[in-house]
Amino acid sequence: MNPSPATPARCSIARTLAVLGDKWTLLIVRDAFWGHSRFSEFTRSLGVASDVLTARLAMLVDEGILERRAYRQEGSRERQEYVLTEKGKQLHVVIGALGQFGRDHLPRPGSTSPEYTDETTGEAVSLAFVTDDGRRVSASSLHVQKSDPALTAGTQG
Amino acid sequence: MNPSPATPARCSIARTLAVLGDKWTLLIVRDAFWGHSRFSEFTRSLGVASDVLTARLAMLVDEGILERRAYRQEGSRERQEYVLTEKGKQLHVVIGALGQFGRDHLPRPGSTSPEYTDETTGEAVSLAFVTDDGRRVSASSLHVQKSDPALTAGTQG
Repeated sequence: MNPSPATPARCSIARTLAVLGDKWTLLIVRDAFWGHSRFSEFTRSLGVASDVLTARLAMLVDEGILERRAYRQEGSRERQEYVLTEKGKQLHVVIGALGQFGRDHLPRPGSTSPEYTDETTGEAVSLAFVTDDGRRVSASSLHVQKSDPALTAGTQG
Repeated sequence: MNPSPATPARCSIARTLAVLGDKWTLLIVRDAFWGHSRFSEFTRSLGVASDVLTARLAMLVDEGILERRAYRQEGSRERQEYVLTEKGKQLHVVIGALGQFGRDHLPRPGSTSPEYTDETTGEAVSLAFVTDDGRRVSASSLHVQKSDPALTAGTQG
């Protein structure tokens, strides 16, 4: 990765990729959203090497995306499980975007995608670009520009 | 990566990562949204090795995310530039999600993020989880489950 952790990138996209821009990391986060929390569950789901999984879980804990919780099964020693923090749950937007693009633009018969509902009302919820009053704008009608902190810092005049 | 291109993953998230789960690939797509299109512009912006950039650009063309267009500067030979296709523009949702998470949860003074407007009306637009009638639902109030194609295929009875 171009930006090392010591010199975080100025671009927020690059900073997110510096933390998450590794396939295993994003698949671990995906599995955490599916309810997996134990080392053995991630290993079984992903087929990832133990040392890689150990390192990625530790990094996700350090970044405040997962938190460790102790649990003990009857007759076993205490173990750790890994659950999404509030910050981790904000990654819904990233995982949801990856799932939506795959579903719509890399189709495959019989494939699965994340489906979101409002946990209070049960209404179907989808990820979209919307105006402040909730009007959807299609991706092909968007204009994008970089925010410029020099313009928004408001230290002039 | 766990799923090889020969056996695409059943999960739409994993399929997207099989194409895009490489830091350079997503940074090239980001740069394309910023308006970069020429080999020299990507090289300058990213500091990426030429052989890596060549391979990633070819893959993004093969996947239908970028398309090659010929251009000729005065006094130079014909060269190729790379622009987002309609399919590529649908990656706004992925790049926007990465930018939004970085801006909100990996803050850094003076950092830049993508800012979206409706190119027709100029209204500010943001990425959000919304119900069909445009009500925003916060990431921490979402319930997620995998779509199950066996349930939705409708071939029974």
